[in-house]
Amino acid sequence: MDKISVSRRSHCPIASTLDLLGDKWTLLIIRDMLLFDKHRNKDFQDAGEGIPTNILAARLKWLVQHGLLEKRPYQHNPPRYEYHPTQAARDLEPVLRAMGGWASRHLEGVSIPEFKQT
Amino acid sequence: MDKISVSRRSHCPIASTLDLLGDKWTLLIIRDMLLFDKHRNKDFQDAGEGIPTNILAARLKWLVQHGLLEKRPYQHNPPRYEYHPTQAARDLEPVLRAMGGWASRHLEGVSIPEFKQT
Repeated sequence: MDKISVSRRSHCPIASTLDLLGDKWTLLIIRDMLLFDKHRNKDFQDAGEGIPTNILAARLKWLVQHGLLEKRPYQHNPPRYEYHPTQAARDLEPVLRAMGGWASRHLEGVSIPEFKQT
Repeated sequence: MDKISVSRRSHCPIASTLDLLGDKWTLLIIRDMLLFDKHRNKDFQDAGEGIPTNILAARLKWLVQHGLLEKRPYQHNPPRYEYHPTQAARDLEPVLRAMGGWASRHLEGVSIPEFKQT
């Protein structure tokens, strides 16, 4: 398995992870795939946070470029794609679980997210 | 122990954690305190990522406001402060460890960070 190369501020593992994933949205896309089995644009838009479509498109492209997602066609006319996690993305589950556990202990009023009924 | 209140996009624990900590810098300040026992402005500036002073000041203020850091005077004339993690911040160590472990497995060329010799 090839390792991921990312433009970085230092060689620190934590800083390098943040160079790749350190924003308010990217890990939510990973969450939707790993914990809720969501794979399509509309699915990600239906999560409760209301990700703007331009940010979603940019983050999906970034994650494909860096080997965290695979883009697969599921319809040809018009073309539509869905996104699947690579092993590297699947291995982020402990990071998500650690964040979730921390929030349940320390943040007010958190609960398991719901998606819009479609 | 009071829970932390944060302005948030949803009730999801992961999203709420990112509302508080989801950027490229905040968790590096937590890293410097928890893993390297750093507590002062100059220490944080000497980490390898070169945090801009205005971002450092804003993040320290944000973390104090949200109950993750305590600000303590260590000198009175001129006044100087150092920052210490609360229990909530100390409990972020598993998040940092999970990120570090993930990076060691999946990112090219990471290694333990060094601080400038002062």
